[in-house]
Amino acid sequence: MNRLELFEQIKKKKSYLCVGLDTDINKVPSHLLKTEDPVFEFNKQIIDATNEYSVAYKPNIAFYEAMGPKGWESLRKTLDYIPKDCFTIADAKRGDIGNTSSLYAKAYFQQMNFDSITVAPYMGEDSVKPFLEFHDKWVILLVHTSNPGSADFQQLETRDGKYVYEEVIFASQRWATADQIMYVVGATKADKIGTIRALAPDHFFLVPGVGAQGGDLEAVSKAGMNAQCGLLVNSSRAIIYASSGEDFAEAARKEAVKVQSDMSTYLHDLIQ
Amino acid sequence: MNRLELFEQIKKKKSYLCVGLDTDINKVPSHLLKTEDPVFEFNKQIIDATNEYSVAYKPNIAFYEAMGPKGWESLRKTLDYIPKDCFTIADAKRGDIGNTSSLYAKAYFQQMNFDSITVAPYMGEDSVKPFLEFHDKWVILLVHTSNPGSADFQQLETRDGKYVYEEVIFASQRWATADQIMYVVGATKADKIGTIRALAPDHFFLVPGVGAQGGDLEAVSKAGMNAQCGLLVNSSRAIIYASSGEDFAEAARKEAVKVQSDMSTYLHDLIQ
Repeated sequence: MNRLELFEQIKKKKSYLCVGLDTDINKVPSHLLKTEDPVFEFNKQIIDATNEYSVAYKPNIAFYEAMGPKGWESLRKTLDYIPKDCFTIADAKRGDIGNTSSLYAKAYFQQMNFDSITVAPYMGEDSVKPFLEFHDKWVILLVHTSNPGSADFQQLETRDGKYVYEEVIFASQRWATADQIMYVVGATKADKIGTIRALAPDHFFLVPGVGAQGGDLEAVSKAGMNAQCGLLVNSSRAIIYASSGEDFAEAARKEAVKVQSDMSTYLHDLIQ
Repeated sequence: MNRLELFEQIKKKKSYLCVGLDTDINKVPSHLLKTEDPVFEFNKQIIDATNEYSVAYKPNIAFYEAMGPKGWESLRKTLDYIPKDCFTIADAKRGDIGNTSSLYAKAYFQQMNFDSITVAPYMGEDSVKPFLEFHDKWVILLVHTSNPGSADFQQLETRDGKYVYEEVIFASQRWATADQIMYVVGATKADKIGTIRALAPDHFFLVPGVGAQGGDLEAVSKAGMNAQCGLLVNSSRAIIYASSGEDFAEAARKEAVKVQSDMSTYLHDLIQ
């Protein structure tokens, strides 16, 4: 899915919601545990309930990896089930030397056909390039994350008076355009999103941290939106675990509707 | 395996060789392809041929992940097969927010019982801490990698006149001791290893890049060795793909013997 197609979906659904599929077998409602693949069954019902209101799904790969070979089967089935008009994100935070990054790229882009993967930048250009060789796919680069530890290295100031996370933006803009790279920008400080938007006017930002991590959707939207929306705001636990009972999917739908309704307001000027 | 036990193994085998199990199904000798699990069969024979001369094995997780659920089975069988007197490293380069890193830690330390995992530091303290909660396990933190892209961010100079990779060392020394953290230090510039040894006198360094990536074992050993050796030098392709024929295991053994023989010389003063 390219940038324009993604924007078309955002306009059509009046939503830039990404639903995070952080599916934990210990939190799957008990009535699903007797099904053959409870994690897939849970995801399937969440997707059915929310895909009218969300433009993207982001399985958090750790949750599937932690289940061993069975988890990978659940992930594959989930990915196949996500409707084709939704953007898919492998939240894997990979990044390694060239030949190893190539293998990760093949695994997520070819074998599983994800639209995008989150990538950690610490190892630099040749660790990211193999993902960019898939021209119809996306790299979502960690820039400024929403966790407390983002202060440790991302926010170190360099001798040139820039932050390390800014250097990641500048460098990555030499590697590819806003048609192939998005940035992970944490939502816990909305003013930071405005600062980063000034450095990357055209790029889509994947914004975690709204919901369980405490970001404010309105502030994020005002500070971060560009002419093509340019935002995918993720919510995981607040939606998928809205209820732990048999009504989990309906409860997830209601939460997604709430977020989508707010988003439609913030999108108002773009959709005219 | 704790630091002292690892040093005991190094003294016993007169070796600090780590064999990298970057096992690519496309490079497995053809006579193995008719076995039930060619990747495991290949690893098994490599381990049998080399474990007398190596103290550690490092499966590169991407190679197994790229094979889907079957790859995870091969990985699990490989790990179970590695002799208990060898140190095991999951070369996964993970790192994510707290609850996600916890899942990765459980997957690699509990379900698969690796001794250690490589971790990318970009997301900071709370992305690393969950791995450190396993007190009998190890975090091997990316500090200064051997690829060209290490210059992009790791070698940025901060306002305090330090490099980003040095900041990673300083910060991580506040999180845990040399009994729980090792560092990945690339071998392509041996003088850099000496500089880093001065900052981290007691830590073990995992040194990739000797062999296929062009590092010099003698220079690395002279610059990096401490009183407990403090080095695990990895070789992957030069050993496991020494021959592509039916004699691959014997060829791997010969390569391992060569490296071990050199290492025994460099260890001479420690083993008296």
